[in-house]
Amino acid sequence: MTAIKYDVVGIGNAIVDIIGRCDDAYLASHSLTKGGMQLLFDLAAVDALYKGMGPAIEISGGSAANTIVGVASLGGKAAYIGKVADDEFGRIFAHDIRASGVTYETAPAKGGAPTARSLILVTPDGERTMNTFLGVSPELNGAELKPDLIAAGKIVYLEGYLFDRDEAKAAFREAASIAAKAGRKVALTLSDGFCVDRHRDEFRRLIKEQVDILFANESEITALYQTTSFEEAARQAAVDVKLAVLTRSAKGAVIHSDGKAIAVAAAPVAKVIDTTGAGDLYAAGFLFGFAAGRDLETCGKLGSMAAAEIISHVGARPEQPLDKLARESGLL
Amino acid sequence: MTAIKYDVVGIGNAIVDIIGRCDDAYLASHSLTKGGMQLLFDLAAVDALYKGMGPAIEISGGSAANTIVGVASLGGKAAYIGKVADDEFGRIFAHDIRASGVTYETAPAKGGAPTARSLILVTPDGERTMNTFLGVSPELNGAELKPDLIAAGKIVYLEGYLFDRDEAKAAFREAASIAAKAGRKVALTLSDGFCVDRHRDEFRRLIKEQVDILFANESEITALYQTTSFEEAARQAAVDVKLAVLTRSAKGAVIHSDGKAIAVAAAPVAKVIDTTGAGDLYAAGFLFGFAAGRDLETCGKLGSMAAAEIISHVGARPEQPLDKLARESGLL
Repeated sequence: MTAIKYDVVGIGNAIVDIIGRCDDAYLASHSLTKGGMQLLFDLAAVDALYKGMGPAIEISGGSAANTIVGVASLGGKAAYIGKVADDEFGRIFAHDIRASGVTYETAPAKGGAPTARSLILVTPDGERTMNTFLGVSPELNGAELKPDLIAAGKIVYLEGYLFDRDEAKAAFREAASIAAKAGRKVALTLSDGFCVDRHRDEFRRLIKEQVDILFANESEITALYQTTSFEEAARQAAVDVKLAVLTRSAKGAVIHSDGKAIAVAAAPVAKVIDTTGAGDLYAAGFLFGFAAGRDLETCGKLGSMAAAEIISHVGARPEQPLDKLARESGLL
Repeated sequence: MTAIKYDVVGIGNAIVDIIGRCDDAYLASHSLTKGGMQLLFDLAAVDALYKGMGPAIEISGGSAANTIVGVASLGGKAAYIGKVADDEFGRIFAHDIRASGVTYETAPAKGGAPTARSLILVTPDGERTMNTFLGVSPELNGAELKPDLIAAGKIVYLEGYLFDRDEAKAAFREAASIAAKAGRKVALTLSDGFCVDRHRDEFRRLIKEQVDILFANESEITALYQTTSFEEAARQAAVDVKLAVLTRSAKGAVIHSDGKAIAVAAAPVAKVIDTTGAGDLYAAGFLFGFAAGRDLETCGKLGSMAAAEIISHVGARPEQPLDKLARESGLL
């Protein structure tokens, strides 16, 4: 029996974000869907899109990694599993997540594909459109998924993006099984509406069979249940999974559990600068609260607070210590 | 006779900044002088300091490069000469400066030393302490210093940091000679008080013989003339160079020209987040105005405005278009 050492263990694609501004015309000229995540299949496609982007900054990212850093920033104990290469971006990713207080022991891959990167185009409205080259990140295998590490977390948190590559999908399933066998909670974020479209049937089966806590935003949950009605999608989610946490941007979130629905308002933000990481940090706040045994409404408020911090600046890693903000908000 | 194509041509060390926060105790524990720039002589020293730094973000930097990007952001025509390697940081540097509208044609070096990087530690007061590994950046040689490019600028702008390596110093002198022969103005920034200490005699000779416009802050100019009195240092600078632009952070700047001294106040800033690039952007505003034939007081106000923008966020590259800010301030 493995002892619990972590509040949350996250598994995802380890990515460095390259964030720059663009206007709506640039999205249109490249046929990009605002707010979505499209995959770039080679470095030539990365170069072509990068060339036309404005000046950028580089910040560590990756959906589950952002969440895990958020958990640590709130004062939670957190570990992360994700693959980088032995290159400059890999060193940046590893430094930043460790410097955030997260246990990160996945060895970098030598040779082969480079570390994943996402070109993130931020439009004047603050919305982000992601263009991700996965590089080495899906090459997670059994060796990285140490059962002792996964079983040492109260919750294992998995990102839906892992489903975009078969190797990562296999790792995803294995991690969920390890966690379930150890009696831990399995949490999943659906990641992206298009990602849901690509893997709908598998996600639905997985959610019914292996997921304890589901995170999704409006476009993801309606894509999952192929309906235009959020309420209908939420009703189906509540049947399929014990705890469904459904976010709706400025409209706040609805938490479905045990036949009850709890609405939590979004936290106020003076000006939305960059929405990158909003869902990731909502999950961070919620999971931190859940692991600490807080009631679901407080979990939701912690999520809203963390999401509000992240959208008020560029990048998906907190600029301010979230534990301090939580104390100031009376949530800690 | 080369036709003028640029307002300013800048030459400097091409650097990517790695910016993270730290407390004063971290500076003390590494014997770092707050506000200064120390050189790191190998990648092992970079790794040692990086390891203990908080999570960071990567943004293109380099003193003269920041200035040149500022000139372009104000609507000026600008070119830059500086050496990167054919690596990830080199690609980031080249992309960002070109995406800012600057002509940048220096070929990346293959093999050999990596692209320069500066670990920038920002303390809670917003002050930055830089730790720079120069890498390939000083390896400028005659081939990079195209006389046609240098002579195509109304002003050639050189950073004092180039003096820290012999190869770069030789390139510096050559560029100044090319500009002088073509009848162009030569502008120099002293860069750093410790840099001045290392090269005092040569800087003084150079300023008397080859410099038309000198930029220095209080610690640099007093280091140059080995006095604790700013007024005494300013008096000597006014004798040695036709146009001396001396900045004093929140106390504003004093411009010495033709026996007259013009004081220009600092522009107000709601909260100083990170002082990295303050002097670089002051020079950008001033040089843009000077190249456009504006009076010296307006040049100083353009400098104050650009410096105020840069210290209000993390990083030494403008987040907002400076031409827009200048128009809003009635300076354009």
